[in-house]
Amino acid sequence: MKVLFFLAAIVSVAFTEAVPFESDLLLPHSGSVNGRNCLSWRLAVETNNVRDWDVVPADCAYYVADYMSGSQYPADCNYVTSAAYKHARSIQLKEDGKDVWVFDIGESSLSNLPYYSRSDVLFGSKEYNSTAKKEWELQGKAPALLATLKLYKKLLNRGYKIVFISGKSESVRNVTETNLKNVGYYTWEKLVLRQPSERGTTLAVYKSKKRGELVNQGYRIIGNIGDQWSDLSGDYAGNRTFKLPNPMFYAA
Amino acid sequence: MKVLFFLAAIVSVAFTEAVPFESDLLLPHSGSVNGRNCLSWRLAVETNNVRDWDVVPADCAYYVADYMSGSQYPADCNYVTSAAYKHARSIQLKEDGKDVWVFDIGESSLSNLPYYSRSDVLFGSKEYNSTAKKEWELQGKAPALLATLKLYKKLLNRGYKIVFISGKSESVRNVTETNLKNVGYYTWEKLVLRQPSERGTTLAVYKSKKRGELVNQGYRIIGNIGDQWSDLSGDYAGNRTFKLPNPMFYAA
Repeated sequence: MKVLFFLAAIVSVAFTEAVPFESDLLLPHSGSVNGRNCLSWRLAVETNNVRDWDVVPADCAYYVADYMSGSQYPADCNYVTSAAYKHARSIQLKEDGKDVWVFDIGESSLSNLPYYSRSDVLFGSKEYNSTAKKEWELQGKAPALLATLKLYKKLLNRGYKIVFISGKSESVRNVTETNLKNVGYYTWEKLVLRQPSERGTTLAVYKSKKRGELVNQGYRIIGNIGDQWSDLSGDYAGNRTFKLPNPMFYAA
Repeated sequence: MKVLFFLAAIVSVAFTEAVPFESDLLLPHSGSVNGRNCLSWRLAVETNNVRDWDVVPADCAYYVADYMSGSQYPADCNYVTSAAYKHARSIQLKEDGKDVWVFDIGESSLSNLPYYSRSDVLFGSKEYNSTAKKEWELQGKAPALLATLKLYKKLLNRGYKIVFISGKSESVRNVTETNLKNVGYYTWEKLVLRQPSERGTTLAVYKSKKRGELVNQGYRIIGNIGDQWSDLSGDYAGNRTFKLPNPMFYAA
């Protein structure tokens, strides 16, 4: 009977207390707001059915906030990196040290979630602010995306060479390298950043070109992991590609 | 206070009553059973991170049953076909009648859900039974996948030519054509089925070849919609591809 009263009390509180803005972010959101089914939107984004989107639809902002802040996003990431490692294990590496795994950086190896959680960013539902984003990145304080860091360590143990290919500018090399090392990515074969001359193209074109250079240098791309389809499409995509979830922004 | 007791009573019943097998299918399943996160599994499948899987993992059978039988699957399909139509509208068609949209058939234009709902199939969680599946298909009773039928009609209205490309055998042409017509797909430019000589390859290779033949005949593939990545990958994939959800089986 005590238990029943306790449960009833919880229910009662949940139904009567006014919910302030901040904790609203922590409540479950069904994903269907104002007629838009945010689960469907997210699936469409993740499967590359919806492209070239600008910001998270306003009516899905809290849904995305819940997803990114809760247990499902890390669980989804872990599932992807487990599948990636299963592929990695299935390959018999050659002795020449040319078997590589390509990693994207932002939202793949490093997480910008502390930035995207800010109220002026609200998980990608506010208009993109390149100045604010750059300021955050220049602090070099991005934590590791834990699932990816775990994969990275296991791949190194197995003998894979790691190649980071990022759309970030060469001008942020120092802070990026320091950030990577600080959170546990302590070694790599190459860390490829975008040169001023490579600014004019889409990420997909730039990354294909960089992977092509790797292949021309004799490397074999066994795996390629990123949060954007532009990390994974085009030429020399790799033996297998792995798409990490990211419902916060789109990069062509 | 009455309300509190009522709520407490519900909670009490929920915790004490044994749940029979049949209605278990109708209860919400969190997606996390025996440690496997079925939401993560489904996302990994839909994004092509997990490939070559045999059957739905046993511990996700009820989760997939819920998803396919509930409102989320049709909502997800509608979201995809809406995105497809948005692309269709963005294209200025030529006057030569060579702008085509490629449709897959099974789980794309026609739904085999009545078959997959059977207790001996259980949404793809039981071992694949090619005899039983063929028996079902030979009845020609598959309903339309409603979201796709709606897209089909809108594309026809806009002047697109429809080309069905299916992995089904040429031997089932009559029943397939009758089934398609019975549920509303009343016209098409071509209905491409697999010839005996084309049996040896994967679906992806066969479909790429068939799309190549279309392109060589002067057709322009503006869109391509299917439930398998093998419908959408490889050469001549189309100007844009659209992946419908299907967590029930994998076809390479």
